[in-house]
Amino acid sequence: MRTPDRSGAPHTDLDPQLAARLKRDPDGLITAVVQDATDHRVLMVGWMDDEALHRTLTSGRATYWSRSRGEYWRKGDTSGHVQWVRSVALDCDADTLLVRVDQVGAACHRGTDTCFDDGDLDALVLDPTERTA
Amino acid sequence: MRTPDRSGAPHTDLDPQLAARLKRDPDGLITAVVQDATDHRVLMVGWMDDEALHRTLTSGRATYWSRSRGEYWRKGDTSGHVQWVRSVALDCDADTLLVRVDQVGAACHRGTDTCFDDGDLDALVLDPTERTA
Repeated sequence: MRTPDRSGAPHTDLDPQLAARLKRDPDGLITAVVQDATDHRVLMVGWMDDEALHRTLTSGRATYWSRSRGEYWRKGDTSGHVQWVRSVALDCDADTLLVRVDQVGAACHRGTDTCFDDGDLDALVLDPTERTA
Repeated sequence: MRTPDRSGAPHTDLDPQLAARLKRDPDGLITAVVQDATDHRVLMVGWMDDEALHRTLTSGRATYWSRSRGEYWRKGDTSGHVQWVRSVALDCDADTLLVRVDQVGAACHRGTDTCFDDGDLDALVLDPTERTA
């Protein structure tokens, strides 16, 4: 996946102490896993740079960096499917965020509740009696 | 984050039809969000290439590509903290997997239940009465 030029990304007011903890990918982004705060479904995965994280933490609404469009993307501005932030946690490696939200409407741009609603892949699921590590 | 050379990655027997759907990053990897199948907590995020996905789908155990060590990593081989696969789903963009597992012991290498147990970041959470999109 090609990542657009982000040289035009604005100055950010993200807390410098938090910014110093983040481990960004070569494009300056960290992974954001988005989970419904009520039913705990994993809704989608997005990407944030420092400014998207700053906006997410300070505005009450989940905001991402769109890698395909090369611009900030405040979820719901076009679709109405707003994500109201309930909590944000950084993982042990400081390269992934878990964003818990109150989701308005469908999380997926295809109109489904989550981005993982296209059916499970064919996977071997061992019965507990067969599980010998 | 530097990604090690993967030129030594083996041939894979991943189903060609599935392989044709995947949208990999420049390093040949896709994101894998790992969720506890029972309590629905998000446990961690890992990375899979085609062979790691093949092993995950056919062995009953979640297997990743370790970007830091540059090798396959079958969760639990060292720690005993095995992840038994319950389901695997691909997202709408075909670049992210949701892997639901039965987790044995701690999911995080730091010994915590999940990799997101280090406390929430300071975030503005709007009261429902304040939410005007």
